[in-house]
Amino acid sequence: MNNSYLIILGFNSSLPNYNYHPTSQLLFIKNNYFLIDCGEGTQSQILKSKIKLNKIDYILISHLHGDHYFGLISILSTYQLLRRQKQLTIYAPRGLKQILNINFKWSRTKISYPIKFIYLTSLKQKKIFENKDLKIYTIPLKHTIYTNGFIFKEKKKLKNLNIKNIKMIKEIKIKDYLKIKQGYNFKKKNGHIIPNNFLTYKSPKPLSYAYCSDTKYYPNIIKYIKNIDLLYHESTYLHKFYYYAYLRGHSTSISAAKIAMLSNTKKLILGHFSNRYININIFKYEAITIFKNTIIPKILKKYYI
Amino acid sequence: MNNSYLIILGFNSSLPNYNYHPTSQLLFIKNNYFLIDCGEGTQSQILKSKIKLNKIDYILISHLHGDHYFGLISILSTYQLLRRQKQLTIYAPRGLKQILNINFKWSRTKISYPIKFIYLTSLKQKKIFENKDLKIYTIPLKHTIYTNGFIFKEKKKLKNLNIKNIKMIKEIKIKDYLKIKQGYNFKKKNGHIIPNNFLTYKSPKPLSYAYCSDTKYYPNIIKYIKNIDLLYHESTYLHKFYYYAYLRGHSTSISAAKIAMLSNTKKLILGHFSNRYININIFKYEAITIFKNTIIPKILKKYYI
Repeated sequence: MNNSYLIILGFNSSLPNYNYHPTSQLLFIKNNYFLIDCGEGTQSQILKSKIKLNKIDYILISHLHGDHYFGLISILSTYQLLRRQKQLTIYAPRGLKQILNINFKWSRTKISYPIKFIYLTSLKQKKIFENKDLKIYTIPLKHTIYTNGFIFKEKKKLKNLNIKNIKMIKEIKIKDYLKIKQGYNFKKKNGHIIPNNFLTYKSPKPLSYAYCSDTKYYPNIIKYIKNIDLLYHESTYLHKFYYYAYLRGHSTSISAAKIAMLSNTKKLILGHFSNRYININIFKYEAITIFKNTIIPKILKKYYI
Repeated sequence: MNNSYLIILGFNSSLPNYNYHPTSQLLFIKNNYFLIDCGEGTQSQILKSKIKLNKIDYILISHLHGDHYFGLISILSTYQLLRRQKQLTIYAPRGLKQILNINFKWSRTKISYPIKFIYLTSLKQKKIFENKDLKIYTIPLKHTIYTNGFIFKEKKKLKNLNIKNIKMIKEIKIKDYLKIKQGYNFKKKNGHIIPNNFLTYKSPKPLSYAYCSDTKYYPNIIKYIKNIDLLYHESTYLHKFYYYAYLRGHSTSISAAKIAMLSNTKKLILGHFSNRYININIFKYEAITIFKNTIIPKILKKYYI
């Protein structure tokens, strides 16, 4: 069963907006919660999501513009007040640690849980996380300061055994199971081949999610996000302001839709809307002319990948 | 007419609470808006108050615990995005400027409006602001780090002339008006004294407001806040936890009420409630046993001083 999901905690751009919160997302995938960017107020958005703050062990910060990290310091302070013990891993551009440390210094806060900082510095794609189920890579973006997107890729899973059918082939022993799970056929002593399909159930397709904010229209990223299941791509402006957006290191609805189409993504979520737009549904009307499966997210709703 | 008022933007203490916001207040007095402390999310609370962010020219920070200043950096960034030109004056402990500058450095933000930092360093009371209508003094508090409260005192106003009565005394010339406004009687050439009360209307009483957060029970402050109109005093815990509160540099409902009673204040507003309390009205039930005119504030309501 697929139970990986994305919760958009905020999708506002830098100027504040009455109803919306700045950028932050919570991704649940392969039994881990990943907090992606962390604008002001993220902590109270997480409270509203009913997901326990302390379940988060990984925080990824795309870049050091305030609407993507001003909410981080209060989450780290809360962990301290709640006497967190578990390690927290933070992926962020160099500079974040300096910013956090100077805050802690003046408030005389001693952080007593381990924080592991992974500095992002490369302009090329890097693998930044791997465990038995999941890999995470950066996506180098083009913004006004050093910025990374992130792509989360589930690893190919072993197939599930069809025990009922396996029992019919007496020669198969427990020591053969791993090979069968890996997809190999079984060869009987008499030379007969038992096809793997007969012995296993199909394993679920590994899922993938890519987060791309903030960036100008940058087709270079397409090669990193081919055939993914879900793409979040920023769309600060409507396409009328394409040139304005480009100069400011941002994308439009049409740019985001183009990236989704050219990368053959399944579903596109837009966000990072400028506060000049009252009706954000217009972003969808523009984008679907290029890429049909486009979503304007609802805050705190779970989007299954 | 008295149109000085206080808006409580948030009164939560450091651990986050679903419904409440951390400490911040907006004081309108003598035609100026003063923002007092600035926890995370203050900017969106100001948006909700319908008071234009750009009307604020003075920000006072009591101390450098995050729940009192984490919201400041995003307000300063918003001013930059909105192309503020006016000077902003910030009163704060040393250290705040370092914290702000390191944020601005990494986001490559150049602040183009003038920010005047007034560093608060003294352990004694200091006058930090004076214009023709108003004076502001610090109130040295006792917390776990260097902390100031603030007291705002209107200056005594000139009396208003009773023009109808003045016209009856032909000898009074325009050059005499200032003396009369200042409260002097008028002496006619024949030696008769015209009492000032006949020539003027009573001037409104100068108002005063004191902000005391965060602090343990500290009767030393009473001498600074004698006979004021409105006192905000922190009340993190109920009185059962007096000793616990004291050790943590905080006050209880009863401590706050005692300070209000002993200083002969007119009205007390409590705040900075610990998130362990669901029903914050209990703070009032305790406090009114000592000081009757006690208020549990409603967020965003205007409290006229």
